[in-house]
Amino acid sequence: MQIAPAERLADRSAKLRHALAGSHVDVLVVTSLPNIAYLTGFFATAAALIVTPDALILIGDGRYATALAKRAQAWSAIRSVLVPPNCSYDQAIVENVTAFKGLRIGVEAAHLNVRRFRYLASALVNEGHAADLEETDGVVEQLRVVKDDWELARLRDGAARLSSAAKCILPKALAGRSEAELAAEIESELRRVGFDRPAFDTIVASGPNAASPHARAGSRKLEAGDLVVMDFGGVLDGYCTDLSRTVIVGPRGDRQQRAITQVIDAQLAAFNAVRPGELPEAADQAARDALARHGVADAFTHGTGHGLGLEVHEGPRVSRARPDHVEPPLAAGMVLTLEPGIYFEGWGGVRIEDDVAVTEDGAEWLTDVPRSL
Amino acid sequence: MQIAPAERLADRSAKLRHALAGSHVDVLVVTSLPNIAYLTGFFATAAALIVTPDALILIGDGRYATALAKRAQAWSAIRSVLVPPNCSYDQAIVENVTAFKGLRIGVEAAHLNVRRFRYLASALVNEGHAADLEETDGVVEQLRVVKDDWELARLRDGAARLSSAAKCILPKALAGRSEAELAAEIESELRRVGFDRPAFDTIVASGPNAASPHARAGSRKLEAGDLVVMDFGGVLDGYCTDLSRTVIVGPRGDRQQRAITQVIDAQLAAFNAVRPGELPEAADQAARDALARHGVADAFTHGTGHGLGLEVHEGPRVSRARPDHVEPPLAAGMVLTLEPGIYFEGWGGVRIEDDVAVTEDGAEWLTDVPRSL
Repeated sequence: MQIAPAERLADRSAKLRHALAGSHVDVLVVTSLPNIAYLTGFFATAAALIVTPDALILIGDGRYATALAKRAQAWSAIRSVLVPPNCSYDQAIVENVTAFKGLRIGVEAAHLNVRRFRYLASALVNEGHAADLEETDGVVEQLRVVKDDWELARLRDGAARLSSAAKCILPKALAGRSEAELAAEIESELRRVGFDRPAFDTIVASGPNAASPHARAGSRKLEAGDLVVMDFGGVLDGYCTDLSRTVIVGPRGDRQQRAITQVIDAQLAAFNAVRPGELPEAADQAARDALARHGVADAFTHGTGHGLGLEVHEGPRVSRARPDHVEPPLAAGMVLTLEPGIYFEGWGGVRIEDDVAVTEDGAEWLTDVPRSL
Repeated sequence: MQIAPAERLADRSAKLRHALAGSHVDVLVVTSLPNIAYLTGFFATAAALIVTPDALILIGDGRYATALAKRAQAWSAIRSVLVPPNCSYDQAIVENVTAFKGLRIGVEAAHLNVRRFRYLASALVNEGHAADLEETDGVVEQLRVVKDDWELARLRDGAARLSSAAKCILPKALAGRSEAELAAEIESELRRVGFDRPAFDTIVASGPNAASPHARAGSRKLEAGDLVVMDFGGVLDGYCTDLSRTVIVGPRGDRQQRAITQVIDAQLAAFNAVRPGELPEAADQAARDALARHGVADAFTHGTGHGLGLEVHEGPRVSRARPDHVEPPLAAGMVLTLEPGIYFEGWGGVRIEDDVAVTEDGAEWLTDVPRSL
């Protein structure tokens, strides 16, 4: 696994400290694992990070002793701390935050549950901290949404590998094979092309099952005439890629072929609406308008896409505007999926999904797989 | 996928309402997805549930429209609600809680982040609720920790299938094959025996990599003389099973064979300490004592096990006692892993893991696979 070099990590910390300088926070307790991976290059299923004005205190448990030590060795800004065997992460956080008594301590409101928040707040008061914990929202995520060159290279590499896996897999959607068999082959192929693991539960939804956007892969066997939605992705160096294609098994029905053409049209319309400075919802609206022209707007029951990076769903949301939430405009370096779909209960569905990067003057496809097979 | 019958679900709701009757809560907003699945049989990647004194208001988004309707049809206690397309789950929760103005509203403190908590609390005040949100902790999880007969049947079935997959897979750990290849074969075999998906990222850790309890599966090729830790599990009908074996590739070294024997000894010691009424930490201590007798206690860097069910890690923690947390005693119907391991940096490691059910007078192995291959 490739990990971002120290100078990239240093850039990210510098940007974070710059963002914090305009806020009410001097020391940030980071509890989102993807945010920790972004700032330190440390990937684990449990960790905590304290970003102080001049260091990164990276907390892990005994299982990660070696990995933690290696991280601290690779980049001198990291001070690694092991959670003692009979203590919790939160106890370790409190112990390491106590030194910063005069400073304002921030937490990530979207990545700390109420129970942990209450514990930290009261423990810090007991330790003599005067001020309340400051609740921050999305400070690190805002940095992550625009990828740096190193990240773009990972995502490009992942998208190329995913495309090659897809080209090998899609022709295998043949009558008589089960959804689960096909899903197993997809995941095996993902590993073969170099992914560490699937980015999410692989979807193979055939025939009537394809009418559910979130079907998984079951025992149903593919039949001639089925539409089969395959939605899969892999994680490479921590970065997620995501692709969907819909194939017709055996003889192609007119209605099926038409549905595929309509969704491809919607995807291209969305692509053409992706441009720095535009709102993500404009791309969503373009896809909706295209499907409306085909008379199937009501069959599109989800958003057009989402950001990709250390998480398979991250900012920006490429979706209808919400009254309570304004998504910032697109900017060069954002990476997102465009995945319109139409679904008809009892009949089936079509989804076509690719990954794109926002460029200085528009967008660029990262995945490259024929759309109509 | 089999879903618990309505009478089982009704039992669970009745127990939950009984538990709430002794608390400060009349209406509970459930935001933990496994808790929602437990109470309603609805499995999704997004959902919310409002448990009122006489109904279950199950909230989902457009992707799950059909699945939601089916659930409500299968069990009349469920009233299904769709999140409107340009609204959030939290807006839908507020809208559906508003009717219960005189009642005390509880939330799950461990399954609601601070941001969502603030939003719900202030929206309810705006809607005219007088009282603060009550923070509850682990009310549904406490019910889940003891499995009912229906759940035990699922876990037994899963453990039998996992054992059969393991017997087929373990002999394939041969020199020259890569960790990733072997992981792909394991996951393919998991699907072949009927699992919906892997329960967690499959671990294949060979040679020096086996010294990290949380290694995954990389490009390293197995070599003669390697210890190879394989840790994998599957999800069947929503329930997770989990197994580890350590095999020696090619000629067996004495030290390797001895390490395996020591860990088997520790696992049996833990098994013999599992009994209703005893604390889980007694089983952990038994494993530690056994390894201490072999002089390798320091190499055991994690807990002995964890509960299994709708989550691959749930209660009870089979681990050292913590000053800030008392685990309740074991009880018949609990299902847990016993997975001691020893790890030596630069040399390798051994972990042996099985699933057991706590019975009326001790414990019963659910998985059944030879430990020394």
